[in-house]
Amino acid sequence: MSLRHRTAEFLETRTVRHGITAVILFNALILGMETSAGIMDRVGPAIRIADRLCLSIFVVEIALKLFAQRLAFWRSGWNLFDFVIVGISLIPGSGAFSVLRALRILRLLRVVSVTPSLRRVVEGFLKALPGMGSVFLLMGMIFYIGAVMATQLFQDAFPQWFGDLGNSAYSLFQIMTLESWSMGIVRPVMEVYPYAWAFFVPFIMMTTFAVVNLLVGLIVNSMQDAHHEEDVVKTDAYRDEVLARLEAIEKRLSERER
Amino acid sequence: MSLRHRTAEFLETRTVRHGITAVILFNALILGMETSAGIMDRVGPAIRIADRLCLSIFVVEIALKLFAQRLAFWRSGWNLFDFVIVGISLIPGSGAFSVLRALRILRLLRVVSVTPSLRRVVEGFLKALPGMGSVFLLMGMIFYIGAVMATQLFQDAFPQWFGDLGNSAYSLFQIMTLESWSMGIVRPVMEVYPYAWAFFVPFIMMTTFAVVNLLVGLIVNSMQDAHHEEDVVKTDAYRDEVLARLEAIEKRLSERER
Amino acid sequence: MSLRHRTAEFLETRTVRHGITAVILFNALILGMETSAGIMDRVGPAIRIADRLCLSIFVVEIALKLFAQRLAFWRSGWNLFDFVIVGISLIPGSGAFSVLRALRILRLLRVVSVTPSLRRVVEGFLKALPGMGSVFLLMGMIFYIGAVMATQLFQDAFPQWFGDLGNSAYSLFQIMTLESWSMGIVRPVMEVYPYAWAFFVPFIMMTTFAVVNLLVGLIVNSMQDAHHEEDVVKTDAYRDEVLARLEAIEKRLSERER
Amino acid sequence: MSLRHRTAEFLETRTVRHGITAVILFNALILGMETSAGIMDRVGPAIRIADRLCLSIFVVEIALKLFAQRLAFWRSGWNLFDFVIVGISLIPGSGAFSVLRALRILRLLRVVSVTPSLRRVVEGFLKALPGMGSVFLLMGMIFYIGAVMATQLFQDAFPQWFGDLGNSAYSLFQIMTLESWSMGIVRPVMEVYPYAWAFFVPFIMMTTFAVVNLLVGLIVNSMQDAHHEEDVVKTDAYRDEVLARLEAIEKRLSERER
Repeated sequence: MSLRHRTAEFLETRTVRHGITAVILFNALILGMETSAGIMDRVGPAIRIADRLCLSIFVVEIALKLFAQRLAFWRSGWNLFDFVIVGISLIPGSGAFSVLRALRILRLLRVVSVTPSLRRVVEGFLKALPGMGSVFLLMGMIFYIGAVMATQLFQDAFPQWFGDLGNSAYSLFQIMTLESWSMGIVRPVMEVYPYAWAFFVPFIMMTTFAVVNLLVGLIVNSMQDAHHEEDVVKTDAYRDEVLARLEAIEKRLSERER
Repeated sequence: MSLRHRTAEFLETRTVRHGITAVILFNALILGMETSAGIMDRVGPAIRIADRLCLSIFVVEIALKLFAQRLAFWRSGWNLFDFVIVGISLIPGSGAFSVLRALRILRLLRVVSVTPSLRRVVEGFLKALPGMGSVFLLMGMIFYIGAVMATQLFQDAFPQWFGDLGNSAYSLFQIMTLESWSMGIVRPVMEVYPYAWAFFVPFIMMTTFAVVNLLVGLIVNSMQDAHHEEDVVKTDAYRDEVLARLEAIEKRLSERER
Repeated sequence: MSLRHRTAEFLETRTVRHGITAVILFNALILGMETSAGIMDRVGPAIRIADRLCLSIFVVEIALKLFAQRLAFWRSGWNLFDFVIVGISLIPGSGAFSVLRALRILRLLRVVSVTPSLRRVVEGFLKALPGMGSVFLLMGMIFYIGAVMATQLFQDAFPQWFGDLGNSAYSLFQIMTLESWSMGIVRPVMEVYPYAWAFFVPFIMMTTFAVVNLLVGLIVNSMQDAHHEEDVVKTDAYRDEVLARLEAIEKRLSERER
Repeated sequence: MSLRHRTAEFLETRTVRHGITAVILFNALILGMETSAGIMDRVGPAIRIADRLCLSIFVVEIALKLFAQRLAFWRSGWNLFDFVIVGISLIPGSGAFSVLRALRILRLLRVVSVTPSLRRVVEGFLKALPGMGSVFLLMGMIFYIGAVMATQLFQDAFPQWFGDLGNSAYSLFQIMTLESWSMGIVRPVMEVYPYAWAFFVPFIMMTTFAVVNLLVGLIVNSMQDAHHEEDVVKTDAYRDEVLARLEAIEKRLSERER
């Protein structure tokens, strides 16, 4: 067996997989402790070293995987996911990139990629998305139309909420979640434009109705999936048997007639 | 082939349909850019010309469709929809009609009427509405009753929220969405009328329950539709075959007895 | 045919039923106009007379129904409902009973009792309630426990929210609807009692979970009802036929063996 | 029959079970009255004595149960629940433990453990939890990641909301419930960090989507349970009978051929 195959097998052993999971969880704990100024004052250097160590282990793991799987590595979405997550941490997080330091905790998401049961849940989530594509497209259009209209109508009087397309889209998202939509935004707007409700109330109704339809679609799809897996296979087997037996009886009867 | 038929065929070609979609999207982009004062300062005239151009293309398209389909044009709801959307843009948007300028972005909705998959989603939405007619009627009645009662009870002390039927209906809509209902409205009202909760809490419960029932109705309907399309046809075919075969066997047996 | 039977038939005629519906709707309109001070200044006396007239028609209708159906009148919940609704309006609404004037608009609900399709929707709502009895009982218990605990813990520092059991129950209802629960109530409370979240967060989770379970129960029940009405009858008929035919074949075969 | 068996039977009699339920409800009423300063001023000592009496009855009941069931007592979760609930009340509620006094009202939950129909509802709730384990785990991870990131990014500017991991987790829970998320928290944060929406809007979308998936999972599970109990048993019996009869017919036909 070549070194490549032995590496692949080594990475698949229970010990290695559990070890990696342990390192991920330990790393998440370390990064959690890093947020506390008190802890950092006392054991800051130790925590920074532990973080480097965890990162090194991830880099080595991915390098080994790349060596073992070669180009096949890039075919799995989860491998790509691990690669990006670990890669982000290697960019020096200073100056303009200081926000990248905050992204290191995303490594905890690697728990999903190494745990089959969690992988399945996330894959289930993602599988449900394309079926909702048309509704998402429609909602996107409603938001764009809403943002353009709100900007044109209320830009001058309320620049803090509807100053430009981005501002308006954010405000409309807030209104869609029903957060302070009336007391916070629409009532003040109505003091300047008394008919503003004629824009906002239909907007709320349409987006809420679209969200409800997304929900209904999800439920119906899940139900059908669950229904199929189980019942249909069994029913089809039964039906085939009944028809086969009926055919056999008919054949036997017609043979005797001859 | 007459000119009329050739026009109809021309409008149905892939190139024309994709071209129209492109013009719609380009127009939406243009109208989005119009909201930015900075962009308008630099390229304002160009944007206004591009908008006019897009509108002209839509007018020509609809004129051709009218020529090709004659009276049949008016039978399709989507044609009517296109006609109204484009027609609004032709009204000079100035003075009292300045709000009409904001309605031009509704042209983006024409994407729905030219894209079959989006059309089907919207038609699905609309098809679900009549089934919910009774619940909508009940909610309308609850709102009217609530608005009349709230106006009579709280008109004098809280004219800003319950000054007239329109104000009260708007406030009750806000309360139904649960936005600031207690801290914003009911607690202040209860300082004057300590028993005001006896009106608002049941109102919230009833409207929430009605909304939940709308949701449940939507789910059950969608489920049944999905269930039918698929299973029932197959099941019926199977059942017919089983009964036919059983009948054949019985017939054969009884023939031999003779 | 006795006078009693003729009265019963008269009340059931299309004209009378439609007439009553028209009177109800006209009365609701009248009561809506009564809320406007401007309208009352101009045509106040006419509106008051019209309201009296509508009420008289309802009283006569119910008197006729009582005469026609005698004791059977009281067996229908909808009759009782009409009787109470109309009865309330006859109590002189002055002094301590002035709030009763606001209840007159409830007469609009009589539209439900005279329209079969709306009656069915409301009866469907009411039929769903008993199945949720246990969950309602549990929620009632959670609220009582929550109110007693919140009163004991926060009574002294926040009498405006948790001063007594009634106050606490109202505040907990507001928190259950998630309205301003954190910024409005829990954050201020946490400034005095830093561990208050340990009471409120589980309360929110439990009540939300109970509400979700109510919703799930409603959906499952509706689905089963819809499923039954339709499929099961057809399936049972098919199954009976298959078994009968199989039995017939077997019988015929055994007869010939003899 | 031994004393132990007679005790066990005595505890199971209708009278005893109803008596205990009555004592629980009476005790809850007593504890509710204790929250009113007015009532305590007048009949405080009597209420304290009644509370002690109720507690004594519970202690005696549990002691008898322990005597009757011995070690089997500890095998039932509901017994354990009763034991803890009553046990808490025996800890002297003073000084540091004064908060324990507020926990006495939890005794009302004993109504659940003595009422079979409520027990079943709660057991149904609990049974649904493990199936949602993976989604809960994912939500926990999203919260931990979100809390670490929010603390790192916004700790310095907004210590009152994102000062440490606990603070951030609480604020994110508030944001997940959509309470004042925009006007209360994200808009102020965006004044310092204009791109803060890029953290909060995806957080809201992800947690909402996860909650929706929990709901969908609950509905699908309940539906399948309901579906199974009922239809599947009947269908299986029918299918077995059809296949048995077909087999019998074939057998008879082949016997005659010999």
